Amino acid sequence: MKFAQLRVGQLIEAGPVEVSERAIVDFARAWDPQWFHTDREAAAQGRFGGLIASGWHTCCIAMRLAVEQVLAGSEVVASPGLEQLRWPQPVRAGDWLRLGMRVDEVRRSARRPTLGVLRWHWTMRNQHDAVVLELDATNLFELGAPAAPG
Amino acid sequence: MKFAQLRVGQLIEAGPVEVSERAIVDFARAWDPQWFHTDREAAAQGRFGGLIASGWHTCCIAMRLAVEQVLAGSEVVASPGLEQLRWPQPVRAGDWLRLGMRVDEVRRSARRPTLGVLRWHWTMRNQHDAVVLELDATNLFELGAPAAPG
Repeated sequence: MKFAQLRVGQLIEAGPVEVSERAIVDFARAWDPQWFHTDREAAAQGRFGGLIASGWHTCCIAMRLAVEQVLAGSEVVASPGLEQLRWPQPVRAGDWLRLGMRVDEVRRSARRPTLGVLRWHWTMRNQHDAVVLELDATNLFELGAPAAPG
Repeated sequence: MKFAQLRVGQLIEAGPVEVSERAIVDFARAWDPQWFHTDREAAAQGRFGGLIASGWHTCCIAMRLAVEQVLAGSEVVASPGLEQLRWPQPVRAGDWLRLGMRVDEVRRSARRPTLGVLRWHWTMRNQHDAVVLELDATNLFELGAPAAPG
């Protein structure tokens, strides 16, 4: 999508994608080697009664969906950060996740008018409609000079 | 480390670790396939004059350092989320990153006294001392019952 196609209040859906046990364990071994992400037997005895995905893995799944659905082919150049990232429910092997993206703000930077600013809220849910990830993201887009006023 | 070893104001350092171009491209192809993370030639012409790591890759590097240095062997069971995640400067191929973790709060939950709550601030810097990641994280620890007073 292009920056000009984004409107405040717009809702964009992506997914669903399935999360396998293999993917949960592989991701966690690489980046977040805690037993409740990597050890099926120990996790079965733990707080969640089974393996859960690293929260970073959940974020990465959401990011890939956002790139595929929105950012690929756009003028995006960077992100300065995120606010209020929440993992309200764990992601488990066999879950199907879908990402909802709501456009909260879309404008040109006052200081740098060639820069587009997007603020959007992401909500990822599983097949039971439980929220597994929520965050507010900001992305910057390198646009041309604004059109001269009519 | 154990929850009982953590004190407010404590500073814990981890790293440094090197980030290779191969690692930047591989991570981004899997999770964040944007051209400034995956295409060296295009990135050389872009805003940053070269490949930069996915912000999620930077987070994952920090997480692995936090697990290795602090969380491995602890009573940690979960994280409800993060606040104010910032990527002030990009991570580039060949960068050496180190993570500083400052303990901001460490207490038992009032509602669930067997649960320990840690709030800590992470700052990751590169070899030039530039901050590449900052965030406030919360982690929960499953502790035994509190010791009886006096």
